[in-house]
Amino acid sequence: MTLIRSWVESANQPAGDFPLNNLPYGVFAPAGAAPRLGVAIGDYVLDVSAAEADGLIVLTGGPLLDQPFWNPVMAAGPALWDQLRKRLIALLAEGSAFEAAVAPHLSPRAGVTLYLPFRVAEYTDFYAGYHHAVNVGTMFRGAENALPPNWLHIPIGYNGRASSVVVSGTDVLRPWGQLKGPNDEAPRFAPSQRFDIELEMGAIVGTPSVSGKPVTVAEADEMIFGYVLLNDWSARDIQAWEYQPLGPFQAKATATTISPWIVTRAALEPFRIPTPARQKPLLPHLAEPKPMLYDIALEVGLQPEGAEETIICRTNYAEMYYSAAQQLAHHTSSGCAMSTGDLLGSGTISGPVKESRGSLLEMSWGGKEPLTLAGGESRSFIADHDTLVLRGAARGEGYRIGFGDCSGKVLPALADPYAR
Amino acid sequence: MTLIRSWVESANQPAGDFPLNNLPYGVFAPAGAAPRLGVAIGDYVLDVSAAEADGLIVLTGGPLLDQPFWNPVMAAGPALWDQLRKRLIALLAEGSAFEAAVAPHLSPRAGVTLYLPFRVAEYTDFYAGYHHAVNVGTMFRGAENALPPNWLHIPIGYNGRASSVVVSGTDVLRPWGQLKGPNDEAPRFAPSQRFDIELEMGAIVGTPSVSGKPVTVAEADEMIFGYVLLNDWSARDIQAWEYQPLGPFQAKATATTISPWIVTRAALEPFRIPTPARQKPLLPHLAEPKPMLYDIALEVGLQPEGAEETIICRTNYAEMYYSAAQQLAHHTSSGCAMSTGDLLGSGTISGPVKESRGSLLEMSWGGKEPLTLAGGESRSFIADHDTLVLRGAARGEGYRIGFGDCSGKVLPALADPYAR
Repeated sequence: MTLIRSWVESANQPAGDFPLNNLPYGVFAPAGAAPRLGVAIGDYVLDVSAAEADGLIVLTGGPLLDQPFWNPVMAAGPALWDQLRKRLIALLAEGSAFEAAVAPHLSPRAGVTLYLPFRVAEYTDFYAGYHHAVNVGTMFRGAENALPPNWLHIPIGYNGRASSVVVSGTDVLRPWGQLKGPNDEAPRFAPSQRFDIELEMGAIVGTPSVSGKPVTVAEADEMIFGYVLLNDWSARDIQAWEYQPLGPFQAKATATTISPWIVTRAALEPFRIPTPARQKPLLPHLAEPKPMLYDIALEVGLQPEGAEETIICRTNYAEMYYSAAQQLAHHTSSGCAMSTGDLLGSGTISGPVKESRGSLLEMSWGGKEPLTLAGGESRSFIADHDTLVLRGAARGEGYRIGFGDCSGKVLPALADPYAR
Repeated sequence: MTLIRSWVESANQPAGDFPLNNLPYGVFAPAGAAPRLGVAIGDYVLDVSAAEADGLIVLTGGPLLDQPFWNPVMAAGPALWDQLRKRLIALLAEGSAFEAAVAPHLSPRAGVTLYLPFRVAEYTDFYAGYHHAVNVGTMFRGAENALPPNWLHIPIGYNGRASSVVVSGTDVLRPWGQLKGPNDEAPRFAPSQRFDIELEMGAIVGTPSVSGKPVTVAEADEMIFGYVLLNDWSARDIQAWEYQPLGPFQAKATATTISPWIVTRAALEPFRIPTPARQKPLLPHLAEPKPMLYDIALEVGLQPEGAEETIICRTNYAEMYYSAAQQLAHHTSSGCAMSTGDLLGSGTISGPVKESRGSLLEMSWGGKEPLTLAGGESRSFIADHDTLVLRGAARGEGYRIGFGDCSGKVLPALADPYAR
C-alpha cells in the first residue's frame, strides 16, 4: 500500500500521522465553538458536519454528522462507514474538484481542542498479552505458575469503569486507596505510591449485538469501528490488596486515557497480521478465520516536569496473543449483548525484551530494578508531575497511519480527599 | 410508622406491596401505548406524566415527567425527589381534594406491561454478605481460609455488565460457555450445567459524583435514589474456569434481573437498621455515621414448569456486612466518578442457617446436598423451564413496603448458538 496524495499538502509528509490513507475520526472545537465531528487530515481538521450541511457529504438515510459524538455513525454499520470514507477520499484527494468548496471547512489542528470522540457505553479490559501475563505472573506467583491454567484457552478479561475514560491531555490525579503491604498489620487509606501505566490498544464496537446471540470471530471483526491507543492507569498497591478474589476494582478506576482520534478498521486493513502461533489449540469458536491483529509500532515516553522525555518502551500490537475480534467474540459467548460505543482494552502490550515492556511494574520488575531516565533521575513508578505519552503508528510505503498522542500528566494526590 | 390511608382502597390492604407509604417508581405501558413513568398505588399505576400535563404535579425547574426512564428525575437530586413524593401523597391521600382529577390517570396494574424503570449507566456487583462469603470461601478454599484477608476491610466489588440488566418477567436463556472440570483434560464449549441465582438488593445512584472527588458514606447515602430486588444469574461452571485471576466475566454476563419498581430511600426510611457489629474496625472513611441498612424480609421461590412453587430461601437484607452507602463510598475512593443510573448489587444475601442461603450453590453445597422441592423433584442448580422469583418487603404496622416480584424463567440453551 502506498500514499494516497491529498491536495492538503501537509497530509503528504511521510512522517505525519494523518495522510489521506488514515482519515481518523475525532471530536473537536475551534476556539469558542461547540464540540463537533472532525476528520484529521495532515495539519488540519475537516469539520464534517459543516461539509454535510453544505451538501458535500450526502449519506444514505439522511444527515448524520451534526452530533457531539461519533456513536450515531458507529451504530449505522459498515456500509455507511464505507460510504463516508469513500466520500472523504473523493473530497480530499489530489485533483479533487471539491477543493475550493472543502477548504473553508478545514481548521488548523494546532488551534482546536479535542474531546472524547465517542460516548463510551461500557469498558472492558483484557489481559491478553503473552509477555505481560508471563511477567506479572512470574512476579506474583513464580515462573512455574506464571500463566493461569485458563490463559491459553480464554482471552481473560474483566469489566472496567466507563466513567473513568478520558481523552488525551486530561490531567490524572494520583488516587487515594486502601493500601496494605505484606508486612503491615492493618490497611491504611493513603495516596497510591505505585501508580503505573498500561500500554494498550482500545477497540471500539460500532454495530451492536443482540442478547442471547454469541457472535463469531468473523462477525466480531466486522462489528469493530476502529482503534485508539489506551493507557489503563493502574495503582499497583491498591490492586495488590483488593484484587483477590474478584479482580481489580478501584486500582483501575481513577482514569483510562485514550488517544483522541479513532483510526478506522478500513485505514488499518493493509496492516493485518495473524496472532502468534497457538501454544495450545483454541476451541473452534475462538479461532481466527483470517489475520485480525495489526502491525502497529508503539512507544511510551516519560517526561518529568521541566525535563526531557525518555522513551521507556518500544513494542508492537503484534505481541498480543489474542486479537480484539477474538476478545469480542468471547465477550458475547454467554449471550452478553454488546453496544455501540463499547470499548475493549487489549491488555498490556509487552514484548519479549526488557525494553519492550508495557508497564512500569514490568520495566522496574516490581520496583526492584528502577529505570534511569535521560536526565539522570530514576523511576520505579510514576512521580508527581510526570507526563506519560503513548504513541503508535502502522507504517506503509512513504506514509504512516498514526493515532495522535495518548498523553496524561499525573498531579499530586489531594491533601485530604474529603475536605469540602 | 403506620399506614397512610389513600382514597385508592386497594392501597390500604395490609398484605399489599404498594400502600401510600411506598409510592415506588416504574415505567409502564397501557395496552398498545408507549412506555411512560408511573407510580404504583394499590392495584393501580398512576400515569405521572399525564398528571403533570394536567397541572396536578408542578415541579421546580419545569416539566420533567414526560420521559421513558426515571433518570432525569434521579439526576435532579433529593430536593426534587422530596417535592415529588410530597405532592404524590397529597394527590393520593384519603380525603384529597384531587381524587376526581387524579382518578382518570390510574390504570389497573394487572393490565399494563412493565419496563426497566431506569436506564442503567454502569452496573457494579459486590460481595458484601458475610455468610455468603464464608459459605463460598469454605467450599472453594476450606473453612480456615474462607474469608479473603481484605474482606473485613473493604466491601469487595467488581464491575458487571450494564447491558445484561433486564426487568422482571424477561426470560433468561441458559448460556453457553467454556467449561472445564477439575479432571477434564481440556475445556469444552457447552451449555452451563450449574446455572444459579444470587439473591441481592440493588441500590440505584441518583445524583452523580465528580471524577477525582471521593464521597463520604453520609454523602453516598444521600446520592442513592432507591432500591430494587436483584437476581444476579450466575453460571457457576463458567465462573470456576474463568475467574482466576481477574474475577467473574462471562459467568455473570447472561442476565441480571431487577424488580420493576424503584422503592425510594424515603419510603424505606422507617426501616433503617445498622450493619452488624464489626469484626475488625473499619478505616474512618468507610464507617457508618448512622444506620444505613434496611430491615427487608426476602424470599426466593422456585417453580418448575407446571408444578407448584417452593420457597427455597428466607433471609433479610439486614444480613449484609456492608451497606450500599458504604459500597458507594468505597466505589469513589480512587476518584471514580459515579453517574445517574449506576446500579450497585449488594452481593448475595445469605443468612446464618441453611434455609436462609441466597444461592443454589450454597443451598446445595456445591451440588452435594440437592434440595427437595414441594412436588418431590430435586435441584442442585436450575433446570430448564424453572421460574425463579425473588420477593421482598419491609414491614410496618398494618402495612408493608413491597418491591413487586423479581422473576425470570430459564429457557433451554440454544442448540447451536452460532446457527444463523
